[in-house]
Amino acid sequence: MATTVFEAVADPTRRAILERLRGEGALSLSDLARPFRMSRQAVTKHLDTLRESGLVRVRRVGRQRVHELESAPLREIDDWLAPYAAAWDRRLERLRDHLEREDS
Amino acid sequence: MATTVFEAVADPTRRAILERLRGEGALSLSDLARPFRMSRQAVTKHLDTLRESGLVRVRRVGRQRVHELESAPLREIDDWLAPYAAAWDRRLERLRDHLEREDS
Repeated sequence: MATTVFEAVADPTRRAILERLRGEGALSLSDLARPFRMSRQAVTKHLDTLRESGLVRVRRVGRQRVHELESAPLREIDDWLAPYAAAWDRRLERLRDHLEREDS
Repeated sequence: MATTVFEAVADPTRRAILERLRGEGALSLSDLARPFRMSRQAVTKHLDTLRESGLVRVRRVGRQRVHELESAPLREIDDWLAPYAAAWDRRLERLRDHLEREDS
């Protein structure tokens, strides 16, 4: 069964991998694995899960394979959250501030 | 170890329970379990996980125990998503439309 994007982000290590890819762009497996206290094999398993969910894609750059973030599937979580957000409305406030700064 | 809110919403049945509580308000275990093709025991286990994450609270109403949605912990997911949202900006468009309707 394919991994859903909800399952993919449930694990803290997978969220940390996504954050590194967001901050640093394309990374090889060695570069990705370096800060984690786990085997390359364990990191590879998490990367497979992230690829299954569509959040990470692999690209060939010369002789290297690099991993890139694909953030679009996260929209599914954002859309799921939207009706709940009405109850707390902080999101709305934050974006209202953002739009006001844009207009000025 | 306490269940994180990310783990709590990773499961489709738990998301379905949250959606029922959002739509229908406080529900007893029997009312909650009815539409699901699973034992009361399985539903109870999912409810325990949701309570651990803070997304569901139990209240006594007379002799009944009812389950209620507590949506505030979902902010943690919303906050985590925010920096990724820059890449797709649909959220911004949706809220811009919302604010324009409010102003008119």
